[in-house]
Amino acid sequence: MRIVSDINWEQKLMDPIGERTHKPRITGITMVIDKGMGLYAFEDFLNTTSEYIDIIKLGFGTSPLYPKQVLENKIGLAKKHNITITPGGTFLEVAISQNCVNSYFKMIKDLGFNGIEVSDGTIELSRQYRDDLIKFGLEEGLNVFTEYGKKKKGMKLNLNKLIHTVHQDLDKGASLVTIEGRESGVEVGVFDEYGKCNKDDFLQIINSVSYPEKIMWEAPLKSQQIFFINNLGPKANLGNISPEEVFALESIRRGLRSDTFHLAHK
Amino acid sequence: MRIVSDINWEQKLMDPIGERTHKPRITGITMVIDKGMGLYAFEDFLNTTSEYIDIIKLGFGTSPLYPKQVLENKIGLAKKHNITITPGGTFLEVAISQNCVNSYFKMIKDLGFNGIEVSDGTIELSRQYRDDLIKFGLEEGLNVFTEYGKKKKGMKLNLNKLIHTVHQDLDKGASLVTIEGRESGVEVGVFDEYGKCNKDDFLQIINSVSYPEKIMWEAPLKSQQIFFINNLGPKANLGNISPEEVFALESIRRGLRSDTFHLAHK
Amino acid sequence: MRIVSDINWEQKLMDPIGERTHKPRITGITMVIDKGMGLYAFEDFLNTTSEYIDIIKLGFGTSPLYPKQVLENKIGLAKKHNITITPGGTFLEVAISQNCVNSYFKMIKDLGFNGIEVSDGTIELSRQYRDDLIKFGLEEGLNVFTEYGKKKKGMKLNLNKLIHTVHQDLDKGASLVTIEGRESGVEVGVFDEYGKCNKDDFLQIINSVSYPEKIMWEAPLKSQQIFFINNLGPKANLGNISPEEVFALESIRRGLRSDTFHLAHK
Repeated sequence: MRIVSDINWEQKLMDPIGERTHKPRITGITMVIDKGMGLYAFEDFLNTTSEYIDIIKLGFGTSPLYPKQVLENKIGLAKKHNITITPGGTFLEVAISQNCVNSYFKMIKDLGFNGIEVSDGTIELSRQYRDDLIKFGLEEGLNVFTEYGKKKKGMKLNLNKLIHTVHQDLDKGASLVTIEGRESGVEVGVFDEYGKCNKDDFLQIINSVSYPEKIMWEAPLKSQQIFFINNLGPKANLGNISPEEVFALESIRRGLRSDTFHLAHK
Repeated sequence: MRIVSDINWEQKLMDPIGERTHKPRITGITMVIDKGMGLYAFEDFLNTTSEYIDIIKLGFGTSPLYPKQVLENKIGLAKKHNITITPGGTFLEVAISQNCVNSYFKMIKDLGFNGIEVSDGTIELSRQYRDDLIKFGLEEGLNVFTEYGKKKKGMKLNLNKLIHTVHQDLDKGASLVTIEGRESGVEVGVFDEYGKCNKDDFLQIINSVSYPEKIMWEAPLKSQQIFFINNLGPKANLGNISPEEVFALESIRRGLRSDTFHLAHK
Repeated sequence: MRIVSDINWEQKLMDPIGERTHKPRITGITMVIDKGMGLYAFEDFLNTTSEYIDIIKLGFGTSPLYPKQVLENKIGLAKKHNITITPGGTFLEVAISQNCVNSYFKMIKDLGFNGIEVSDGTIELSRQYRDDLIKFGLEEGLNVFTEYGKKKKGMKLNLNKLIHTVHQDLDKGASLVTIEGRESGVEVGVFDEYGKCNKDDFLQIINSVSYPEKIMWEAPLKSQQIFFINNLGPKANLGNISPEEVFALESIRRGLRSDTFHLAHK
């Protein structure tokens, strides 16, 4: 065998790029979208991957579909693992449309959620109402994430409005602003019909906002995760990661997969 | 905060469209295709989603691949949750081709299945033999579903034969007639090579059969589920749903996801 | 009912093609790529499908991401089920790049792995070093698989080098030589940008190597699995099978799914 120097081998084998931080993190956030894992699957999942997960979102309006006991147990488990758990933004949009916002917040608090997402992916939401929702969430002691972008296919991204919204939301107390990518990652926000990220749009956003590290990119496709990590490094905040891809993404963040291997050897 | 009226909030937040019915259902059927879930995964899955599942099909010929104890336990669990559980249609087609139909029925009954699928996706089956199989299934006390359509790629749908078959099968006692969509949803039945539903074919079928509510559409792709629910409402019977998509589909049926949000606000 | 002859019905219903062998197998190998299953999921999975699995690979560099206890338990369970369990080839490539090969082998042995993959999908590796790695693995008592092919998109396959490498690797003691297909199966090795296998390349490989039955084809897509089984029969060695597709693949190997149904009735 070749003579090899094995100093710090454990660190080198676990994180060749060497920029990954531990929880609690302020950058390098991984947000998982959960579409309805059962209780044992969820516990099993957290016991294996929780060190790599910062936020779990119960996708769109799935929260009220759970048997109550299952939902409460999932929320409790997530918090035990120091994970922020939120209902999907669409669920709040349903509450707004149905004039049930007060009940929504009461329900969320009673169930034990420790975060919410404020979005207008499907409905129209005035700046004032958006501010009120952020404020109300904060007063309730919740971690507030906001989202920019419409879910409708082929909606052109309004970059000026995006940049303005990011600044306003952060100013009002949002922890992160998510850029809409849906569960599919296709034909939405910065992604074209093949899921390819528009690099000009991306760069304009990154270069125009005051705190680009406060943006979370919904990036369900592997090619998108690689794009953001190649451009922002392992500290990219990435959302709508499917549960079974958490280890794969973590490998990409550390240079443990071919696609970002080169970042460890710059 | 805006003044909101929270009357009936629980119902409004759980089902904005407001047309979803409880089990046992005669329309709005969800049929799941199970490609080999383990026993604990299956139990976990049912404990979380069983209210939304009417039928579970153990896809194609997977039934004989299980360890017997695992299979019997799965069948028992499904029945405990008031779910009809069937082997895939291809498994009966194997039995027909191998001249083992008697043994097939004996095995199915011994294992505890409470339903079967009679199909000719791969083999040729005369009308007479099809009638015999339906009749035999009914005599054995099984819930009988039939299926129309060939699995071979690019087979042109014969609409006249489809309509005739639907009428005959229902007349002979089939509970539902499934329109073949395979597990892929692509280049089969009413779906083109991109999985897009041919709307003319769809409308002709719906307008020509006497009981369109007795048709179950295999619709594995999200875009297909949205198509059928936009056209038939939440009561569409949908099959070949993958287990991890049950909550997502249920959200679509209720207007808890962006894609059918508008149905709650017509 | 038609008069049917039910002689040997159990065998006919379980394996219409009738060429499937039991473990331990030397051909018809199924290698699963595991991207991070939790411990209970893994146990459940093995209890259901282990008879059909010969090798489990913990994909790319995921091995060091597990909590140690979870990883050791997974390895122990795999071995209990007579399965060879290996870290992904990329993990060894990381160790080579980081000059930690000795530590890599020590770690692998301590954790209990009983196999390794020697590959150069991302790095350059001399023939001599490749030989050394194979030899070292064998000396450590490990089952050694090698892999041919680059992970980079659109790399043209060098058939002469492939054939030479297969012969050399087998000569040095590798159990099987894998042809790179990645997790995606697209635009890599013998697969084009749609995942379609280049039949000329395939035939040239099969016809040029002395022991084609010692090649394992990474074939993550169903269409690829069908291609290899239609061309090589149920004894094709197939890798990078996702865990939820093990039963589906086994159905294809036995003629229990439409796509290979015809092989039972030649």
